[in-house]
Amino acid sequence: MPKPLPLLTSPPPERRDAARNREALMEAAEALIKQHGVRGVTMDALAAAAGVGKGTVFRRFGSREGLMAAVLDHSETEWQAAVMGGPAPLGPGAPPMERLLAFGESRMLLNFKHAELIEAAGYPGQRSLQALSFTTMHVRYLLGELGVEGDLAYLATALVAPLELIVLRQQADRDQISTTRIVAGWTDLVHRVVRPD
Amino acid sequence: MPKPLPLLTSPPPERRDAARNREALMEAAEALIKQHGVRGVTMDALAAAAGVGKGTVFRRFGSREGLMAAVLDHSETEWQAAVMGGPAPLGPGAPPMERLLAFGESRMLLNFKHAELIEAAGYPGQRSLQALSFTTMHVRYLLGELGVEGDLAYLATALVAPLELIVLRQQADRDQISTTRIVAGWTDLVHRVVRPD
Repeated sequence: MPKPLPLLTSPPPERRDAARNREALMEAAEALIKQHGVRGVTMDALAAAAGVGKGTVFRRFGSREGLMAAVLDHSETEWQAAVMGGPAPLGPGAPPMERLLAFGESRMLLNFKHAELIEAAGYPGQRSLQALSFTTMHVRYLLGELGVEGDLAYLATALVAPLELIVLRQQADRDQISTTRIVAGWTDLVHRVVRPD
Repeated sequence: MPKPLPLLTSPPPERRDAARNREALMEAAEALIKQHGVRGVTMDALAAAAGVGKGTVFRRFGSREGLMAAVLDHSETEWQAAVMGGPAPLGPGAPPMERLLAFGESRMLLNFKHAELIEAAGYPGQRSLQALSFTTMHVRYLLGELGVEGDLAYLATALVAPLELIVLRQQADRDQISTTRIVAGWTDLVHRVVRPD
């Protein structure tokens, strides 16, 4: 009979240290990005800023792409936590239409903020799918709260899709559309989808 | 004074030959993909099928990624020609709502067909932007024909976005949603966006 796996009620001390190290590296990376932009951040600079050896940074992230993917994940996770439990109207407590519109604007701004990171992290396939799944479930829930009838999963997907970076980039970079107009357009779209027949 | 550039009324014979060669290579590549799938197509196999040297294939496309990008462009261009001047209801001649619904279904099927090619061609940034621009302009035109009022450019972008591959893949691969349900969902979305207040 195989030996049962040990049950852990709390992570061992080494793990807590590793988590603290990781958090410190993330904070240092985000501060560097804020100061110098994504392009200005190297593995050397991060090691110096976090006060660790360059070897530690490479062991942790593998490559600069790996570092950028980790920063992206960290930022995405923080944003998802704000949607689930942060202050209203993005977080719970506001009426569903207010929450939905706050979600759209916040997601758009986050995707713009992440644009350079997504490129620096290499092909974004997996991350985008997880993020898309979270945003779609959240919008589906709010559509239910709003009493919308129909294929809510499809409608949620359709409302989330125009907030994806490739679409935003076409609008902002190529067609020079302001973020104000994008927000107004998305708000109008939401009202068209939600209004009863 | 700089010497004026020569004016050409028709391409010189070498160019016509090159164009014919390119077309023959494209047809051979598409036939190979149909038979063996994207993964089954190598530069060697293409050279053999088109009856040219392997060096010719490499000079023309640079790499397997370059070949896949060229096949993608070729297929996209043919589809755009069908939208602009092919048979109705995808092409001109049908009422605008019929054209719009035919467009959505056709675009979705094309993106599914292109899924493997897009991956094999590497990061699809530039191509997607051009394609997105074409599809958005076409939908904007049809919304105008339908008498929709509002920010037609934004609404067109919002209708095109859920047909993008990353969204389709989430629906089909991850959530196991049938293409029939995706088409029905998009049709409902169009009606919600188009119906008057």
